[in-house]
Amino acid sequence: MHLTKFTDLGLRALMILGDTGAAGATDPAQRRTIGELAVQTAAPASHVKKVVARLTGAGILGSVRGRSGGVYLADGARSVDVGTLLRDLEGRHEVVDCDGDTPCPLARRDCSLRHLLADAQENFFSTFDGIALGELIDRNAAGAPTGPVSVGMPTTPAPRTYDTDE
Amino acid sequence: MHLTKFTDLGLRALMILGDTGAAGATDPAQRRTIGELAVQTAAPASHVKKVVARLTGAGILGSVRGRSGGVYLADGARSVDVGTLLRDLEGRHEVVDCDGDTPCPLARRDCSLRHLLADAQENFFSTFDGIALGELIDRNAAGAPTGPVSVGMPTTPAPRTYDTDE
Repeated sequence: MHLTKFTDLGLRALMILGDTGAAGATDPAQRRTIGELAVQTAAPASHVKKVVARLTGAGILGSVRGRSGGVYLADGARSVDVGTLLRDLEGRHEVVDCDGDTPCPLARRDCSLRHLLADAQENFFSTFDGIALGELIDRNAAGAPTGPVSVGMPTTPAPRTYDTDE
Repeated sequence: MHLTKFTDLGLRALMILGDTGAAGATDPAQRRTIGELAVQTAAPASHVKKVVARLTGAGILGSVRGRSGGVYLADGARSVDVGTLLRDLEGRHEVVDCDGDTPCPLARRDCSLRHLLADAQENFFSTFDGIALGELIDRNAAGAPTGPVSVGMPTTPAPRTYDTDE
């Protein structure tokens, strides 16, 4: 079972941006460029750009143009419900592709498995209901090691392969 | 969010084999060849073969060699717990690939998101705990239309693409 690469990348970007400090546009140190996020998430910049566009459109990220510009956690982003956020990033896809290009023959009757898989998917998402993004970020900050490990620079800068159709 | 193609195919094969009638090796009408299952699941025979091998190894399917041979639901298959079955087919993969070829920088600390995603995955699987495979099959049979729709022959025989690494 896998989340889509889109969701995966969106969550990583938010956790990294949350790691820069309090949300807001005032401090340039809280901003990251698409290129910086691409390095930090080890994903192609083109994919980061799409995810950032979605999160900016949803008001979760803000952006500042110019030389010291970049994206940052928007005001109120920390109170976003992670369950709602996950459902939005994942979209309304089923966990198996019953109605794809080659529809499953079982889909032509009222398949019991399909209903249960939908229930299971909802149980997955509801695990995150009532958890605010800021809470997740704070838990991570609390669990951060005090040694020289930096979240800002991964040891392996090679881009992770992200399929565009996932 | 998607189940692996391996699990997807395994579930479809089991539902189709359950649709042939009571489990058992005695009646050739209850058996399906790899080729027949490949057509009915619209998947490549090589992938069906792998899934069938796993399910046969687990004692959920039985097989008969020869001209009227094939695979069938083994005795006891109907009492298999679907939650346990799903966990077995899916394996121990995380829903995001934190420790892949390019490990996520957040994985180096005790990432709160990772723990919650594991909880969510368990909530997904536990939806199926206590549900027997036979119960799922019977629910499908009860919901079957009485018209000419046949589960046995999909309208589109073109093979669904299954990635081997999923």
